[in-house]
Amino acid sequence: MDSNLTIAFAFGIASKDSHGKILEVCYQRPTLSPEQKLLTDTFSKEQLTDSAAHVVVSDPQQRRTFRITSDQRLLVATFCNIASPVIDIADAYLKLHLLSYRQLLPNKANLSDIFKVLPTVAWTSHGAIAIDDLDYRLWQARANNQHLKVYAIDKFPPLLDYLVPSGVRIADSARVRLGAYLGEGTTVMPSGFINFNAGCHGPNMIEGRVSQGVMLDCGSDLGGGASTMGTLSGGNDQLVSVGKNCLIGANAGIGLSLGDNCTVEAGLYVTAGAKVKLIIDDHHSKLVKARQLSARSNLLWRRNSQTGQLECLTSDRNFQLNNELHANN
Amino acid sequence: MDSNLTIAFAFGIASKDSHGKILEVCYQRPTLSPEQKLLTDTFSKEQLTDSAAHVVVSDPQQRRTFRITSDQRLLVATFCNIASPVIDIADAYLKLHLLSYRQLLPNKANLSDIFKVLPTVAWTSHGAIAIDDLDYRLWQARANNQHLKVYAIDKFPPLLDYLVPSGVRIADSARVRLGAYLGEGTTVMPSGFINFNAGCHGPNMIEGRVSQGVMLDCGSDLGGGASTMGTLSGGNDQLVSVGKNCLIGANAGIGLSLGDNCTVEAGLYVTAGAKVKLIIDDHHSKLVKARQLSARSNLLWRRNSQTGQLECLTSDRNFQLNNELHANN
Amino acid sequence: MDSNLTIAFAFGIASKDSHGKILEVCYQRPTLSPEQKLLTDTFSKEQLTDSAAHVVVSDPQQRRTFRITSDQRLLVATFCNIASPVIDIADAYLKLHLLSYRQLLPNKANLSDIFKVLPTVAWTSHGAIAIDDLDYRLWQARANNQHLKVYAIDKFPPLLDYLVPSGVRIADSARVRLGAYLGEGTTVMPSGFINFNAGCHGPNMIEGRVSQGVMLDCGSDLGGGASTMGTLSGGNDQLVSVGKNCLIGANAGIGLSLGDNCTVEAGLYVTAGAKVKLIIDDHHSKLVKARQLSARSNLLWRRNSQTGQLECLTSDRNFQLNNELHANN
Repeated sequence: MDSNLTIAFAFGIASKDSHGKILEVCYQRPTLSPEQKLLTDTFSKEQLTDSAAHVVVSDPQQRRTFRITSDQRLLVATFCNIASPVIDIADAYLKLHLLSYRQLLPNKANLSDIFKVLPTVAWTSHGAIAIDDLDYRLWQARANNQHLKVYAIDKFPPLLDYLVPSGVRIADSARVRLGAYLGEGTTVMPSGFINFNAGCHGPNMIEGRVSQGVMLDCGSDLGGGASTMGTLSGGNDQLVSVGKNCLIGANAGIGLSLGDNCTVEAGLYVTAGAKVKLIIDDHHSKLVKARQLSARSNLLWRRNSQTGQLECLTSDRNFQLNNELHANN
Repeated sequence: MDSNLTIAFAFGIASKDSHGKILEVCYQRPTLSPEQKLLTDTFSKEQLTDSAAHVVVSDPQQRRTFRITSDQRLLVATFCNIASPVIDIADAYLKLHLLSYRQLLPNKANLSDIFKVLPTVAWTSHGAIAIDDLDYRLWQARANNQHLKVYAIDKFPPLLDYLVPSGVRIADSARVRLGAYLGEGTTVMPSGFINFNAGCHGPNMIEGRVSQGVMLDCGSDLGGGASTMGTLSGGNDQLVSVGKNCLIGANAGIGLSLGDNCTVEAGLYVTAGAKVKLIIDDHHSKLVKARQLSARSNLLWRRNSQTGQLECLTSDRNFQLNNELHANN
Repeated sequence: MDSNLTIAFAFGIASKDSHGKILEVCYQRPTLSPEQKLLTDTFSKEQLTDSAAHVVVSDPQQRRTFRITSDQRLLVATFCNIASPVIDIADAYLKLHLLSYRQLLPNKANLSDIFKVLPTVAWTSHGAIAIDDLDYRLWQARANNQHLKVYAIDKFPPLLDYLVPSGVRIADSARVRLGAYLGEGTTVMPSGFINFNAGCHGPNMIEGRVSQGVMLDCGSDLGGGASTMGTLSGGNDQLVSVGKNCLIGANAGIGLSLGDNCTVEAGLYVTAGAKVKLIIDDHHSKLVKARQLSARSNLLWRRNSQTGQLECLTSDRNFQLNNELHANN
């Protein structure tokens, strides 16, 4: 195996559909760059020449502490190559776990093909159920006077079905997907959302939407309903990021990156292509494209309430998160 | 029975409260315009002269495959007249099922009186519970060291408690009500919402709110937090619709209809009454009310970032959904 | 005890973590200003000189109707002083119950230190679980082919885990925290949110976010995704309130208070510091700071779609909620 490759390894419990096909895998904390011996003990030579592999653990006594009680469960051992496209479900879930376990920052793993590889699964009060099995299960429950709750039909499950990052609050588990990176001190309110391969370093207050690929540095507040423009749907070709101690107001939005100590006025959406009046001092200003100011620090973005013009000022304001809200997560 | 009437028929399982009153009904796929024989076998002559009826199936052996195990459940057979106002709970639920089973497009059934007919129900981890029974049930569970989860107190349940439309993803079941119409290839993200009697033809990306009565044609993207102005609360008297291949940016909103290939800039809310500068070419423009452009195709709506003026341009842009996100739902 | 103090008293069932520490308390309807005898029967003299206290009920036979079946449950009797800072978990939960039981309006109880006192708890399908116990419980469930659903990791639980206010609809229980005040006739849609110590008198339509401390009077509609600027995070130092019969449009926002019969145009965020053109009549207007108009009635806020200027007009419009939506909650 090429020693330059970054390998991750983990044991996990997979769930299967009624045909024995793997639906998803829950891993214990993965090992990044494991010792060669751990891999060769678990995988055959042929498997290790592939970019990723997983095996059903043949002698479960040696490898587990939990007893697997059902043939709907499968103990697996998986390694994956961080730099290779997603090849199967076990590989995809391992990469998503690495992100949520804070072992890998967003945009550091190759997630190509993840939408093709991941099946759409029903996430229910009885765990993962294959879509094809769901109709029968719904009727069976109802006829037996039970209730099968379907929380979601999706390719990505909620992070909190899998692990609990330390020092975070998540007010609604439906709003944070597995694969989200939540630094210590992160609070995600019910209007917040963090996609897979996205997140923040913490502490942060997240009341808006963190799109796939977007990362916020510490001390920043993404206001209620605020948008970070993503690259998957409808929008941007430029990956957005946010620096330290920024305040993006409620219902605001950014289609470009912010440096440190930036403020975007509540309700203002700054797209990358917008022309903005950059105010240099009381007598000087110039007209620039918003994207020319991308990632620059100490800026205040607002719409002039008298002229309607989009303006950008340099600002010395120092935004501070309310520590009381994040200190005791 | 008047042969011009459109009749629907279905068998279902109803749940009852502690007094034996029906709370809600889950139907198997309804039959639209069923053969007369099916109806006369099931309903009496008197019932068929009404606009809707439901009977408790007297000889369950003949009609069901599931065994109903509890007196909290009731097997019912219901027919309804699409064109008549909602007369009872079984009728309301049948109409909502027809929409979600894609057997009826939004705005084709008469849903008058549905708010009066439908009781507010507690939707819980033990299924539907009458509000009057809930307090006791919550305490009973707690005293027994169990947890009764109340997902909602509402007249409309989540669609995914009842059926699973093919080829869709719904990231949070609380955001799609029974009665929503989700075409094949629809993805509803956690910030999306689709009301009853509303929806999209699919494929579509829905990250915003689809209000009651609103319908999107295929290939359109409703951005994160985007609003389609509804007619039930607070707003519009004009029903909004969206054509093919439109992009409504994040945090944008529309109080008028869009034709095909339209774009609304992120963060811009276009109300029907707003005066807009329609830009015809480099030298010509005119001032019109936004509603005069309702349902017109190939328009780009934006706020000029220098003048603050609401502008509308004709546009040749061809928006394309990201097929990777919708192909393998 | 000083007779000027406002005392509240309640019996409740607390849940404990694996070390016997209280996680949260569910109270039956509290008694405000209870008779002295009730308190002295329950608490010792020493306890009553403190500002708040709770005791484990020593002889449960005398005090309860439910049989507590597990050592994970504890029957408690708590009194608290409304005017004193939060001193412990039982005290915090009693104050939150008082708000949600409509026995106390928002901003009338002293909630200082509540973020310090309340532990972050996992709110799951098996009830409240301590964060430190959760990882084991998740794996235990998975190994046993069961599913432990984690709804949230938060200091504040959903209101509907504790009680059911009369005459309300809550479309998604994750969006209303315990401690929210929901008047009769309140409908909270899936995009709505009501924080603790916040709410509305009812009837109201809540499709936007009611921040901590914010209160709406009756007959007002907070549109989809609309924001009321809060004082905890990122924003305001001025507490926002909304009068009667106001319409705050979808995706709008307010950083100041509204009087009665006010309208804020969809998509418009009015911050307190914005300069606004107050239009007095066809020939007169003046430029004022928005906060100077705070709490004034009969105003219409809009952005002029031709000039981009923030304008405020006096308005005779009388907004009416759609009674059909709220009458039969």
